[in-house]
Amino acid sequence: MPFESSSGVTAIYPGTFDPVTNGHLDLIQRGATIFDQLVVAVAENEEKDPLFPARERADMIESVTFNLKNVQVDVFDGLLVDYARAKNARVILRGIRAVSDYEYELQMAMMNRKLEPDVETVFMLPSEQYSYLSSRLIKQLARLNGQIKDFVPSVVLERLKTKFH
Amino acid sequence: MPFESSSGVTAIYPGTFDPVTNGHLDLIQRGATIFDQLVVAVAENEEKDPLFPARERADMIESVTFNLKNVQVDVFDGLLVDYARAKNARVILRGIRAVSDYEYELQMAMMNRKLEPDVETVFMLPSEQYSYLSSRLIKQLARLNGQIKDFVPSVVLERLKTKFH
Amino acid sequence: MPFESSSGVTAIYPGTFDPVTNGHLDLIQRGATIFDQLVVAVAENEEKDPLFPARERADMIESVTFNLKNVQVDVFDGLLVDYARAKNARVILRGIRAVSDYEYELQMAMMNRKLEPDVETVFMLPSEQYSYLSSRLIKQLARLNGQIKDFVPSVVLERLKTKFH
Amino acid sequence: MPFESSSGVTAIYPGTFDPVTNGHLDLIQRGATIFDQLVVAVAENEEKDPLFPARERADMIESVTFNLKNVQVDVFDGLLVDYARAKNARVILRGIRAVSDYEYELQMAMMNRKLEPDVETVFMLPSEQYSYLSSRLIKQLARLNGQIKDFVPSVVLERLKTKFH
Amino acid sequence: MPFESSSGVTAIYPGTFDPVTNGHLDLIQRGATIFDQLVVAVAENEEKDPLFPARERADMIESVTFNLKNVQVDVFDGLLVDYARAKNARVILRGIRAVSDYEYELQMAMMNRKLEPDVETVFMLPSEQYSYLSSRLIKQLARLNGQIKDFVPSVVLERLKTKFH
Amino acid sequence: MPFESSSGVTAIYPGTFDPVTNGHLDLIQRGATIFDQLVVAVAENEEKDPLFPARERADMIESVTFNLKNVQVDVFDGLLVDYARAKNARVILRGIRAVSDYEYELQMAMMNRKLEPDVETVFMLPSEQYSYLSSRLIKQLARLNGQIKDFVPSVVLERLKTKFH
Repeated sequence: MPFESSSGVTAIYPGTFDPVTNGHLDLIQRGATIFDQLVVAVAENEEKDPLFPARERADMIESVTFNLKNVQVDVFDGLLVDYARAKNARVILRGIRAVSDYEYELQMAMMNRKLEPDVETVFMLPSEQYSYLSSRLIKQLARLNGQIKDFVPSVVLERLKTKFH
Repeated sequence: MPFESSSGVTAIYPGTFDPVTNGHLDLIQRGATIFDQLVVAVAENEEKDPLFPARERADMIESVTFNLKNVQVDVFDGLLVDYARAKNARVILRGIRAVSDYEYELQMAMMNRKLEPDVETVFMLPSEQYSYLSSRLIKQLARLNGQIKDFVPSVVLERLKTKFH
Repeated sequence: MPFESSSGVTAIYPGTFDPVTNGHLDLIQRGATIFDQLVVAVAENEEKDPLFPARERADMIESVTFNLKNVQVDVFDGLLVDYARAKNARVILRGIRAVSDYEYELQMAMMNRKLEPDVETVFMLPSEQYSYLSSRLIKQLARLNGQIKDFVPSVVLERLKTKFH
Repeated sequence: MPFESSSGVTAIYPGTFDPVTNGHLDLIQRGATIFDQLVVAVAENEEKDPLFPARERADMIESVTFNLKNVQVDVFDGLLVDYARAKNARVILRGIRAVSDYEYELQMAMMNRKLEPDVETVFMLPSEQYSYLSSRLIKQLARLNGQIKDFVPSVVLERLKTKFH
Repeated sequence: MPFESSSGVTAIYPGTFDPVTNGHLDLIQRGATIFDQLVVAVAENEEKDPLFPARERADMIESVTFNLKNVQVDVFDGLLVDYARAKNARVILRGIRAVSDYEYELQMAMMNRKLEPDVETVFMLPSEQYSYLSSRLIKQLARLNGQIKDFVPSVVLERLKTKFH
Repeated sequence: MPFESSSGVTAIYPGTFDPVTNGHLDLIQRGATIFDQLVVAVAENEEKDPLFPARERADMIESVTFNLKNVQVDVFDGLLVDYARAKNARVILRGIRAVSDYEYELQMAMMNRKLEPDVETVFMLPSEQYSYLSSRLIKQLARLNGQIKDFVPSVVLERLKTKFH
């Protein structure tokens, strides 16, 4: 995962990604066309009791983004704005869909701006065909043996099958 | 609980119903006037750690809907769309109230449509006098010894009293 | 437009339809699979100063729904619940998308229930690919010479071209 | 904490306050200018597994509101409307910010009105500089060693430091 | 309309009231139990092209609130905060219902606080049975000859009949 | 207004700006730190009957952004995506605040993506101190002789005074 901090704008796309969905990938691709460097930052979030360990969540993302030259995948712990500062990132990228998302996202963005005024949060929209996807729904579906192959990359499909069956 | 799958449109009204409230009953009555058959489908939802077992939740609903000839009560586990398919249902019926409900409901409906395009989710409104009711609030009230007789049928009232006192 | 008021549930799908979009058509098709009879009811709405007269709006809908046997298109003036009563309809069908839609729709549905308790409003979702469509946007696009062929049926496309160019 | 139930309107400002933030204090100050007596009522809420015991949460509030002559701090358990009745309060005061807050607050207010029609819920806005604050975010920040001195009074700052480091 | 500016808290309840509905009256009654003086302030709002002149709108309110001793009805033009200052009011009272209301109300309240920091906006809820009422809907109904006697006081009913028939 | 289309990402910030507020300026400054080139694109919008002609609206923006080297101000008519294409812009920048904003903005962004898949809409937040500002409110305030000097740059203050007094 070599990654030279180059000139230009670096954006952080943070999340738990437990696991990454096609909606996340759609947003990564969109973000990569706009920002010079995009760091997909997998939060440890041990208190959320994730299904996959952070390193495995990052590996799954890497295996489907390796062809995007300006995308890096990383794992982080601690405060997002501290991580952003360490990465010299000027942007936190977030996807938004529903209204309840949006309110929470605004609250986080305001707080992060207060903590670190030099980092801006920008929001982008995933494709409308992914507007109903979430990692939580995917895990529920997988647990109930539902059809998920249209919602996640095949590497995730395989690992979910292994987990649940 | 004999129930002949007849011609006409069958709608599923799924939920945890832990316990059923007057708001749910209001919606069941409304749904029963519009659809040929209405199946109230009690989800096991063991992971939510319900107060009553699924069979008891279904029994309470049955005891207050037995006079509605086209209403059946059932317990199900697994994926809702699989259950709907097995029941030959073309409709999933959901009640909506608040905006946060609504967003989640939309997400579920879109996902279910993707999983099973032949089943439509339709939304109806409970009477405005029940717009503030939820099973969660009822359980909080019962636990704190609050007055709940206007919010639930008497069979539920008795069983909640037994649980908490 | 022969249409025998048969037994079964009749639903009214009211709107201005100025003009009908592919999102409206998607909802008409979905509604027609669930209700025995579906009446697409074009509101005169002269006070809104519509681009097309009500009769022309209805004609455009008819020309693209004639193959749906249980769908009738009609023009109405006056109060929706009076019209529903005259049609022996037990259901008002509405599509919902955004939150602001939703709030207004709820207010209308509550008012209509108060005016006529025997008519229920039910909500359905258009396909997510039409979630951003509205007649207002279509007219703006057409006026600015934007590409609209993916958003409206060809009969509407032709008439909008005639209006604006 | 001597407090004479005087004439005039008494308002209850209930919450978990785990811990009190500058946003809460802002609302207490605003409420105290409008109501004759304001009771800050700390809910035990043991089921939420609070970070601080109720008595300690109340002490922190008292130490920063002692100069507001018409403000009393109290701990309560049980049903809010029962507590309000016992205090002869005619008002429940709540702060609102985001839309998701708002929906939940409305639901609670409607329920409380049903339980006790003589108590009105009124809503006020904290200063916009605190619109992103919540006790939950503060605790996350403190845990991750984030800068929180602008968000809480110094007595809270000290106790959070003691808890986490 | 004699009204002695007494000690205690004066609240302004501003609006266009074109015409007053039972929902407005419900809120006036609730407000009058909480605040020492309540001024119902009818905004001229000529740019909205109201159906009734401001003086007539105020007269209708007066004729149904004359028995509430601490309620005054007034007409005002210009900036609300200037009017509040002139009345020595510390509170602006507003009713809230739907989410779209709420957002606009918050924006106005924040702006008014900036213009006049000593006046607080407080929000109260009308009874849920009036949650779907608005002056705009009432006028539409009256125009279409709909049944409105449950929604407005009889004095308003008479004047609407005179206007439209 | 010389402006060399350089390498890097060009973002369009479109609006009516009738007139520009401090909230708009806050967003322009934030956008200019993230994108290589930022074009503030003043929409003619003659159908909205603006207070100031488009050229004057653009002049006011230019007079307060001339020190931002990568910001250009322009007037446009027609379809936004056509304009974006002509400018070689890959980004449409929009500010968001309230929920009702948000829903409309999402609808526009989805439509624009359909019309031109190569242009992404990104959203940023103005400072919370401007969260209640809008051009419409500013004009209302100015008309009613309210204090607006904290909400608009001085060049706008002068021109609004000239308009209304």
